[in-house]
Amino acid sequence: MMRILFALFLSGLTFASDSSPNSPDSLTNVMPMPAVMQRHPGTLKLDSSFTLGTIGYSDARLERAVQRLQSRIEGRIGVELPLVVTSNGRAATLSIECVAAGFAYPKLGEDESYSLEIGAQHATLKANTVVGAIRGLETVRQLVSADQRGYFLQLVSIQDKPRFAWRGLMIDVSRHWQPVDVVKRNIDGLAAVKMNVFHWHLTDDQGFRVESKRFPKLQGMGSDGLYYTQEQIREIVAYAADRGVRVIPEFDMPGHTTSWFVGYPGLASGPGPYHIERKFGVFDAAMDPTQEETYRFLDGFLGEMAQLFPDEYIHVGGDENNGKQWTANPRIQEFMRKHDLKDTAALQAYFNQRVRKILQKHSKKMIGWDEVLTPDLPKDVVVQSWRGTKSLADGAKHGYSGILSQPYYLDHMAPAEYFYLSDPLPDDSDLTPEQAARVIGGESCAWAEFLSPENIDSRIWPRNAALAERLWSPRDVRNVTDMYRRLDPVSVGLEQDGLTHESSMAKMLRQVTGTQELGAVDVLAKVADPFGVSYREELLVETQLTPLTHISDAVVPDAPFRRQFAALVDQLLNDAPNFSAKREVLAQNFRQWRDLGPGFLAMETRAPILAGCKGRVRDLENLGAAGLEALIHLQSRIAPPAGWKEASLALVNEAEKPDESMLKLSWLPSYRSLILAAADVEELKVANPQQWKQQVMQEAAQQEPPAKYTW
Amino acid sequence: MMRILFALFLSGLTFASDSSPNSPDSLTNVMPMPAVMQRHPGTLKLDSSFTLGTIGYSDARLERAVQRLQSRIEGRIGVELPLVVTSNGRAATLSIECVAAGFAYPKLGEDESYSLEIGAQHATLKANTVVGAIRGLETVRQLVSADQRGYFLQLVSIQDKPRFAWRGLMIDVSRHWQPVDVVKRNIDGLAAVKMNVFHWHLTDDQGFRVESKRFPKLQGMGSDGLYYTQEQIREIVAYAADRGVRVIPEFDMPGHTTSWFVGYPGLASGPGPYHIERKFGVFDAAMDPTQEETYRFLDGFLGEMAQLFPDEYIHVGGDENNGKQWTANPRIQEFMRKHDLKDTAALQAYFNQRVRKILQKHSKKMIGWDEVLTPDLPKDVVVQSWRGTKSLADGAKHGYSGILSQPYYLDHMAPAEYFYLSDPLPDDSDLTPEQAARVIGGESCAWAEFLSPENIDSRIWPRNAALAERLWSPRDVRNVTDMYRRLDPVSVGLEQDGLTHESSMAKMLRQVTGTQELGAVDVLAKVADPFGVSYREELLVETQLTPLTHISDAVVPDAPFRRQFAALVDQLLNDAPNFSAKREVLAQNFRQWRDLGPGFLAMETRAPILAGCKGRVRDLENLGAAGLEALIHLQSRIAPPAGWKEASLALVNEAEKPDESMLKLSWLPSYRSLILAAADVEELKVANPQQWKQQVMQEAAQQEPPAKYTW
Repeated sequence: MMRILFALFLSGLTFASDSSPNSPDSLTNVMPMPAVMQRHPGTLKLDSSFTLGTIGYSDARLERAVQRLQSRIEGRIGVELPLVVTSNGRAATLSIECVAAGFAYPKLGEDESYSLEIGAQHATLKANTVVGAIRGLETVRQLVSADQRGYFLQLVSIQDKPRFAWRGLMIDVSRHWQPVDVVKRNIDGLAAVKMNVFHWHLTDDQGFRVESKRFPKLQGMGSDGLYYTQEQIREIVAYAADRGVRVIPEFDMPGHTTSWFVGYPGLASGPGPYHIERKFGVFDAAMDPTQEETYRFLDGFLGEMAQLFPDEYIHVGGDENNGKQWTANPRIQEFMRKHDLKDTAALQAYFNQRVRKILQKHSKKMIGWDEVLTPDLPKDVVVQSWRGTKSLADGAKHGYSGILSQPYYLDHMAPAEYFYLSDPLPDDSDLTPEQAARVIGGESCAWAEFLSPENIDSRIWPRNAALAERLWSPRDVRNVTDMYRRLDPVSVGLEQDGLTHESSMAKMLRQVTGTQELGAVDVLAKVADPFGVSYREELLVETQLTPLTHISDAVVPDAPFRRQFAALVDQLLNDAPNFSAKREVLAQNFRQWRDLGPGFLAMETRAPILAGCKGRVRDLENLGAAGLEALIHLQSRIAPPAGWKEASLALVNEAEKPDESMLKLSWLPSYRSLILAAADVEELKVANPQQWKQQVMQEAAQQEPPAKYTW
Repeated sequence: MMRILFALFLSGLTFASDSSPNSPDSLTNVMPMPAVMQRHPGTLKLDSSFTLGTIGYSDARLERAVQRLQSRIEGRIGVELPLVVTSNGRAATLSIECVAAGFAYPKLGEDESYSLEIGAQHATLKANTVVGAIRGLETVRQLVSADQRGYFLQLVSIQDKPRFAWRGLMIDVSRHWQPVDVVKRNIDGLAAVKMNVFHWHLTDDQGFRVESKRFPKLQGMGSDGLYYTQEQIREIVAYAADRGVRVIPEFDMPGHTTSWFVGYPGLASGPGPYHIERKFGVFDAAMDPTQEETYRFLDGFLGEMAQLFPDEYIHVGGDENNGKQWTANPRIQEFMRKHDLKDTAALQAYFNQRVRKILQKHSKKMIGWDEVLTPDLPKDVVVQSWRGTKSLADGAKHGYSGILSQPYYLDHMAPAEYFYLSDPLPDDSDLTPEQAARVIGGESCAWAEFLSPENIDSRIWPRNAALAERLWSPRDVRNVTDMYRRLDPVSVGLEQDGLTHESSMAKMLRQVTGTQELGAVDVLAKVADPFGVSYREELLVETQLTPLTHISDAVVPDAPFRRQFAALVDQLLNDAPNFSAKREVLAQNFRQWRDLGPGFLAMETRAPILAGCKGRVRDLENLGAAGLEALIHLQSRIAPPAGWKEASLALVNEAEKPDESMLKLSWLPSYRSLILAAADVEELKVANPQQWKQQVMQEAAQQEPPAKYTW
């Protein structure tokens, strides 16, 4: 693992370099953090005299990337740049020296490295491949900075390359359809943070989303008309390739295949007819692995798809087949006996082998979810783990390459720091270096039970940028505070690329309320995260046809309020025994919550869709009142009356429970500290307030209920 | 003109109907206001039992419109509706009875009328044509309301039809390119407010935006690659027709044609070579009207376009040819002498006649700007007036049909009420009924010197909805307060249709500042409108290539603060002699402005693009300080010292001047009233405070400098 070196020289004074690899002092906004980066004193002026040109190899793909950089910088600084993409850039301020094209279509393991040297007069970006240059151009963009004299590039020496070769995002477009422009802007997002795989979950029980000309009833009867034409697929694949992003299509089988059977019931193991599934979950429908016709069909279909998708991998899913249709079908049972297949897992292994051979015939490699990993599976199959690092490590020990996905399920709504700190090779990994090398990356997963074109971006970004850094940057880049600091400007950059994650919440709240005057709804939305998918499926009955227009669909995961509130409480408690720091800000929040009821009721009257949030509003009213009391006890250093602590903690526990609002108050751990501090205020020894604070925080941590579902 | 009748019956009590045609008591959000509408007591419940079906004629276009209504209502109320589009809707809650298809492609003068009867159990929408039904479905959507019992439709009897047959929006896609999705969402906006013409300004000096297969160098060399393919054109035309919106293409000629000449310099009257114009304004380049080759070319090109665009009209521009190339060309001068053409206007008349014959050959009617109206022009040519109602009336007197555009130039950034109160047939019109009938409508114009895909929606909407009402509703529907009240929910509905006018400002400000913490920039942006195009072109040097990412590009015309501030001042002065109403709110604003400098400087340091706003920030600081002084004088009723009034008014005058920030403080008239009230506070007689206020307001109105450019 390479270490990051910072050399900070500020206006004449020379500071020793900070030994911490992620010191916030470095104050660069680059994300993911480069493998090796040195900062230098001075700046490279960025004004209308700044030019940009290529040296050596260039092609249309590289030129388009340079033009994208140009237009993004122009937009940022508000000045037209007379940038000229030339075949001889010697005179340019930024020279891009590319050695060769690399692969026309990006390939697993392709050289993505680059070096970047920005000096006070001139900058040079060097790369062996166009994809490497594209990665470096994203870094240049993030180095744009400014002071009172104007815009400039920060001076740096960077040697960069990714830690993992496979850095992806999966989007499920089956459970909810996403139009072409949504897919494209998310590919832009991937490129902006140097991710290189778009995994397209195209088929599932709830919809078949790709046009087959050979078997037109697949999309014709299995999609409600919501599918990508082959022309659109080609357009998206080219769009992604232009940005150095591979497109891996997934055709989930033998389970998760109801939508195939609407048009082709003969493929199924149970009797039809079949209809597009509107509900979510695991269904019985599975392909019949005992009929040769199934494999003839798959040969035809996968052969067609192999032509359409240029990537060397095709994902065949393989997950969550419950085996019920197989067990219930006497003919299939007979087949298993005849072929000595002990159980349905063995039958699925047989199916996998057959499918793999079909892929091989069409010159494709296979990737599948954990379940494909069965004895005798050839070693060129890549395993995507939804079961976690242990399953992934087991595969690696048996010689299989794998990518990690389980901690990266975006629909569980974990904060960015959770993704950030979840390493594909955890601290306690017992893999040998050779085995560890088989862990080739990871993928976040945007499962789409509750994704609409309106809110999908906010469920992916900016959290996905934290994962991008986890997968690209050195293992020891893991300073959460600095990650969040950089996430703000990175998020704004992603919005420039067309993503809607920063604007969707306000827009959706206007739709919820029917007005621009959001009032109490705004107060509520700002302090709430959405609960994860597991809680939601447990509590609410929803289908593919349920409108995704409630507040819980609008509010964003990892909302900044959690961190803001934690900082306020922290500063207040650090100010013991006076407790005046931030007290008024906290009190303002608490008063606003305490008095939220009437305003919310007025909104609910005009927008009954808000009715489910009543309970959570009542929680906020209670927490506001108790919070104000806590502040008074801290300020006066007079302990609250008997029972206050228990009553207040009961309010917190109540507010922590999922309810039909599906609004999660993710700052409650900090609030609990505040309550305990107030309850324990008389134990505070003025001589050692930090020790007291420590105790309070520990007590609060112990009180926290365990999460029912893992993130 | 039909009058609007309101019959309001509230929970048992019967009120006499309000004689004012636009009483806010009516509290319906319908916009444009129907020709005749009666309100009834009670509600029609809107929940999961609500169904929707067609009776009689139905077709795919109608069914798609019904499905759009379904999905918008579902989104609004958050409940899946089991709406079934049936060919026999007798059992449905809302029956749509359509008599016949009408025109497959919408046609000028088509019957757009509908009637809507919503009762407590059942609703019926009747129309003679599918387009009429589509108009009625938009009304149904706007009647969705709610109270503590849930969502419902308001009970009404409506007989509706448009006042004018031609109700359009022109978008210039030449000066700045707009992608397909921007065009589509604006067509959705038109349909939402019952407008029926999308006028597509496709060619101009700065770009040729339509694919010609016959003359591929037109778009090939004249567009920077930014043009609509014929497939995209067909897609957009079909999209518009589906919503009852006609698409009129404009090919501006003989002037505004530089982009044609880049590929075909032989068409021009002056020597080439030509390049795409990057600057704005009127240029000399003009087609050569003396060569038969010009007409052969136009015959080929317009013949091709006549196939592509199904509308019976083609717009040929005709505006702002300065005649310089014609005068400078001896061959053209010779031609004019030979044909007895007295001046370049006569030559252009000759050109128009030839072009009209070509259009006629291709079965198209001609429409052009004022300048096409020359003696001997056939009466079937429609004239679009950019010169105003007088020019339009002159045409009508001479027998020409015309549409009004001059007061409806969106780029002049007038408030919605200006469009709203500008009638195509003004109060002082001296037209006979027969002549008045030739005024067939109007069009707003989105000229694109400063339009980007990011900000275009905010320059069109929601102001365009006010014009939609002007052109659809009876002449005497002109209550500005009620218009603005309805504009809020209508604007939210437009956002549901995909328009970005409500979200673009915050997004663009994040790009300006590079962060989500907008701070002082937010304060500034909320109180500012953009100056109109004339001021901007006078003060700044900008081209097609200048990035449109300054604050002035982000802030929105007719920002609500103007009306909010006016209401605050009004309430304060109405509260004479105490002056306590709203005083604290005003003081909060003033303090925020007075102290704006340091925060703004900090933002400017990180975002030097803000530098041009320094002066306007200083204005706000001064106005904040003087405003606080004014409040003190009012409260104390002690006159300010000598010179205070003049000094304060000088600050206002300074703040009113356009500067490089291009930020207009459109609330300054109200602020001036406040200053004058403070200066004249000792003249206030307690017995008659209203008279005093009247005088203050009059004095303020007199002090207002005349606008340099008309709106």
